[in-house]
Amino acid sequence: MLTVNAYAAPSATEPLVPTTIERRDVGPADVLIAIRYAGVCHSDIHTVRGDWGPITYPQVVGHEIVGEVVEVGADVTKHRVGDRVGVGCMVNSCRECENCLAGMENYCLRGNTQTYASVDRDGTITQGGYSTHVVVDQDFVLRVPEAIPYEAAAPLLCAGITTYSPLAHWHAGPGKKVAVVGMGGLGHMAVKIAAAQGAEVTVLSQTLSKQEDGLRFGAQHYHATSDASTFETLANTFDLIVNTVSAPIDLGAYLRLLRLDGTLVSVGAPPEPLPVQVFTLFGNRRSFAGSSIGSIAETQEMLDFCAEHGIAPEVEVIAADQVNDAYERVLRSDVRYRFVIDTATLA
Amino acid sequence: MLTVNAYAAPSATEPLVPTTIERRDVGPADVLIAIRYAGVCHSDIHTVRGDWGPITYPQVVGHEIVGEVVEVGADVTKHRVGDRVGVGCMVNSCRECENCLAGMENYCLRGNTQTYASVDRDGTITQGGYSTHVVVDQDFVLRVPEAIPYEAAAPLLCAGITTYSPLAHWHAGPGKKVAVVGMGGLGHMAVKIAAAQGAEVTVLSQTLSKQEDGLRFGAQHYHATSDASTFETLANTFDLIVNTVSAPIDLGAYLRLLRLDGTLVSVGAPPEPLPVQVFTLFGNRRSFAGSSIGSIAETQEMLDFCAEHGIAPEVEVIAADQVNDAYERVLRSDVRYRFVIDTATLA
Repeated sequence: MLTVNAYAAPSATEPLVPTTIERRDVGPADVLIAIRYAGVCHSDIHTVRGDWGPITYPQVVGHEIVGEVVEVGADVTKHRVGDRVGVGCMVNSCRECENCLAGMENYCLRGNTQTYASVDRDGTITQGGYSTHVVVDQDFVLRVPEAIPYEAAAPLLCAGITTYSPLAHWHAGPGKKVAVVGMGGLGHMAVKIAAAQGAEVTVLSQTLSKQEDGLRFGAQHYHATSDASTFETLANTFDLIVNTVSAPIDLGAYLRLLRLDGTLVSVGAPPEPLPVQVFTLFGNRRSFAGSSIGSIAETQEMLDFCAEHGIAPEVEVIAADQVNDAYERVLRSDVRYRFVIDTATLA
Repeated sequence: MLTVNAYAAPSATEPLVPTTIERRDVGPADVLIAIRYAGVCHSDIHTVRGDWGPITYPQVVGHEIVGEVVEVGADVTKHRVGDRVGVGCMVNSCRECENCLAGMENYCLRGNTQTYASVDRDGTITQGGYSTHVVVDQDFVLRVPEAIPYEAAAPLLCAGITTYSPLAHWHAGPGKKVAVVGMGGLGHMAVKIAAAQGAEVTVLSQTLSKQEDGLRFGAQHYHATSDASTFETLANTFDLIVNTVSAPIDLGAYLRLLRLDGTLVSVGAPPEPLPVQVFTLFGNRRSFAGSSIGSIAETQEMLDFCAEHGIAPEVEVIAADQVNDAYERVLRSDVRYRFVIDTATLA
C-alpha cells in the first residue's frame, strides 16, 4: 500500500480538506502514475454533495487526470516509466459483456468501475485524481501526446471525450450543421472539436456574454437562447445538436431546430425526466439520444485528434486549497472554461 | 365538378352517414380514380371525432385508397386509364422546400396536403377515400402491383408505409433484432415486413391473445407486456423497437430493452408529452425517434417489396353502412387486423 496526499470531501456538506489516502500495491497489470494535474468537473461537485445519491466519505473525486508513469507491474506492456499518460472517468469494466467485448467499455452492461465513488474489484471504493498518485490497470490508461501540455490535457479526459464521442458518432464534419448548447467546460470543447472536424458550428448559449470566445474557438454563429427569435430563425436547421447543459431544457424548442434526420444528443442530464412531445419527433424524422463519455480506444483517438489539430481546453490552473472556491465558481458558471488543480500543491 | 357518393361525418359526435360530395374537375396533371376499397385507419376516427383538433364538417375520411384509373389529364405521363393505383395519406406538398426537393415530401416543411381534412391548393378541404371516386395529382398516385389483391393493398398505403419506412431507414434485416410494440393494424404489418426483411422479430403486446397470429406472420418471439418479467428478460436486447401504440407507454421500460446504439421509433403518439429519463438514453447510447409515413418513392418501393415477398395485410371487408360499427370495434381493438370498405356498397 502507498500512502499519498489528497484532497477529500469529509461529508456531503463540508468543504474539501487535505488528507492522505491509501493506493493499492502495483499489481502485475497496473501502472503507478504521479499525477501532475487534475481537472475539476461539475460531476465532482454533484458526487461529493450527494446530488446523484449517497456515497461513502471521505471521498476523493477528480476524473480528468494526467501525469507521468513512475512504476509498472510485471505484465505491463502498454506503458513505460516516464510516459505521459492520462486517466478519465473509468478505471475498469467487466470485460465480458457484449459491449466490453465490442471495445465499448464505456457502455459496460454491468456498469464500468468509475474513477471515483465506485466499488472496485477488491471491494474498496475508488478514489479520484485530487491526489498525488493513482494506481490504474494499464488498459484504462491513455497516452497523452507531447503536443498537448499536461494541464490542458487533463480536461480532455472527460470534457474532451464526452463531446468528441457524439460528434464523431453522429458524423460532424464538412457540410454538417452542428449546434452546441451551453458554453461551459464541455460546450467550449464541443465547439473546438466540431470546428476542427470541419462542421459549421453554432453556439446556443443563454446570453451573448461568451460570443467572442465562441467565435475564436471556431464557431461561425452564436445565438442567445434567452431571445425567443433564435428558435424561429433556426427552425429546421441542424443535423446535430449536442446538449451539454445538465439543467432541464425545453426539449421541444431545441428539437424543432433539427432538420431532416437530425439528432439532438444530450451529454448532460437533469435527474428529473424531460417531457418529449412525440409529434415533434415525427417532423423531420428527428431523434433524441444520449451519449456517455467514450471508449478507451476512442479516448485515445480523441487525444491524438486534439494533438494533430492543435486543440486544447482553456484552463485556469489552481492550487489544491483553492478547490472549494473553484466549486462555488463552477456552480455560478464563473469559469473560462475549466479549473485544473496543480497537484504539486498537494505535496 | 363531379358529384360522387361518399360516407361522411356530419359532426364530431354523430355517426357517419351516406352523402354526396363534389370532386374537382380533372386538371392537366390529375388522375381520376374509381375507388374500389378504402381502409379504415384509427386516424380516421381521431380526425372525425376532433381528437386532434377541430375540423370542418361534413368530412369524408379514409387515406388507404385503391382503385382503377378512369380518366387522366392532358399532361399525365405516370398513369394510364385502367391502371391499378393507390393513394395514401398525402395528395400534395409544397414541392419547393429542402425536404420536398430531396424527395421526402412526407416531411414537407410547409406541411404536406393530407388526403382528408387538409386545406387543398384551391382552398377547399380535402375529402378522403370513403367514396366512389377521387381526383389526385399524378405525382401522389402509386402503382399497385398485380400480385396484391385490391382489398389487401388498401391498408398498405398507410399501415404498410408507416411501418416499412422506419424498418428500412433503421436497417431492419438479417442479424438485427427488432421488436414491434402493439399487434394492431400497424403492428401486424410491421411484423410481416420486418420478418420479410430478414430480421429476428419479437412482438411486445399487452397479452398473448394474438400470439398464434404473430408467429404465423413471421415473429420468432412473442411476449406480454402485462408481465413485468418481460422487461427483465429482454433488457439490452433490441437494435430497433417500432412502437405502433398511440396510447402513452412507459417509455423508460421500453428504452431499456435497447442494446448498444439501439433506437426506439414511435409511429403512433399520444397528444400528451411522454417523460424521458435522459440517463436511460446514456445507457447503450440509445435513441428515441419519430417517423411519419414515408415518401412517395418509398411507398412505391414498399408496394413492390410486398408484392415480391407475398406480403399483405389481414383484412375484414365491410360494406359502407358497417363503418360506424367498425369504428367501435377498432376502438376496442376488436379487429384482425384492418377493416376495408368495399366502395361498391356506396354505389
